Amino acid sequence: MQWGKLDKEPCSVSRTLSVIGDRWTLLILRDCFLKVRRFDDFHARLGIGRPVLAERLQKLIDNFVLTKVAYQERPPRYEYRLTQKGLDLYPVVMAINHWGDTYMVEKKGRPLLHRHATCGHTFNPVHACSQCGEALDPRRVQVEAGPGARDTTPMPISYPASAESRMKVKQAPKRGT
Amino acid sequence: MQWGKLDKEPCSVSRTLSVIGDRWTLLILRDCFLKVRRFDDFHARLGIGRPVLAERLQKLIDNFVLTKVAYQERPPRYEYRLTQKGLDLYPVVMAINHWGDTYMVEKKGRPLLHRHATCGHTFNPVHACSQCGEALDPRRVQVEAGPGARDTTPMPISYPASAESRMKVKQAPKRGT
Repeated sequence: MQWGKLDKEPCSVSRTLSVIGDRWTLLILRDCFLKVRRFDDFHARLGIGRPVLAERLQKLIDNFVLTKVAYQERPPRYEYRLTQKGLDLYPVVMAINHWGDTYMVEKKGRPLLHRHATCGHTFNPVHACSQCGEALDPRRVQVEAGPGARDTTPMPISYPASAESRMKVKQAPKRGT
Repeated sequence: MQWGKLDKEPCSVSRTLSVIGDRWTLLILRDCFLKVRRFDDFHARLGIGRPVLAERLQKLIDNFVLTKVAYQERPPRYEYRLTQKGLDLYPVVMAINHWGDTYMVEKKGRPLLHRHATCGHTFNPVHACSQCGEALDPRRVQVEAGPGARDTTPMPISYPASAESRMKVKQAPKRGT
């Protein structure tokens, strides 16, 4: 698997990472969800070089995750705003944030709280099944080949015979142990 | 912000990315959730160099995301298994997968389907509020400073006066437009 060809892999994780798997892009997206929209603000907050930031923002535009909206005509000035495709990355950013809230905060507690305007409470994101509504436990999820599977699709493996036999070959020359 | 100091940032997204933000690590984790456990299997599936793979696996062990379990004594052979801390990254991997399923699959459809053993149905992950159970829309979530906030905590910004005034200075020399 080559990093530059991730978008061609028959795997939705690889393909998504071909768009957002860059080391700075997820931090740019975090800032987008914090309503950061202007180049200079991204630059001041992230402290990365301007050419790198410009390249990352352009890639998100090319992938329809962000759109450039003029907020001033003279001189022309633009904001970077999340498209619907970009807004749909919210679960990714929130899941990353929640794991950090769970395992990586200091004693004082979380740096940020999230309040749900609909119910008025601060909340955690819960990752639930669309069919029964129950919180998902990876031990209760089975993976199957879908209609878009190819031979090379990453699938659950059960340690094929070939690997076992290779292991036996390696074991063969015993040293009296 | 320096990449090597992400784990010190007062932000749960940055801190999580200090553990999993490496370009290959999320693909290793994807494979862990597909029940890949052995070094040679990771190596064959990902096609990255053995030293790089070994370093990434060791980092996940150092961060208690994976644990090394002996599955054979002579010669000693180890498997890499997700800890509870690692299993709790499932929402991250599934959210990434679901976005790819939504926006990046080919015409034939998804490469993989997920079936919930609890209800028996194939499902999508839904990202819901822990308090009211409603699916989360980023436009309905407000962010507030938490107990662990520092002055430097990434917060929603409203384009401070300083940025506005800088803009005005730049506009000052009008060219008769």
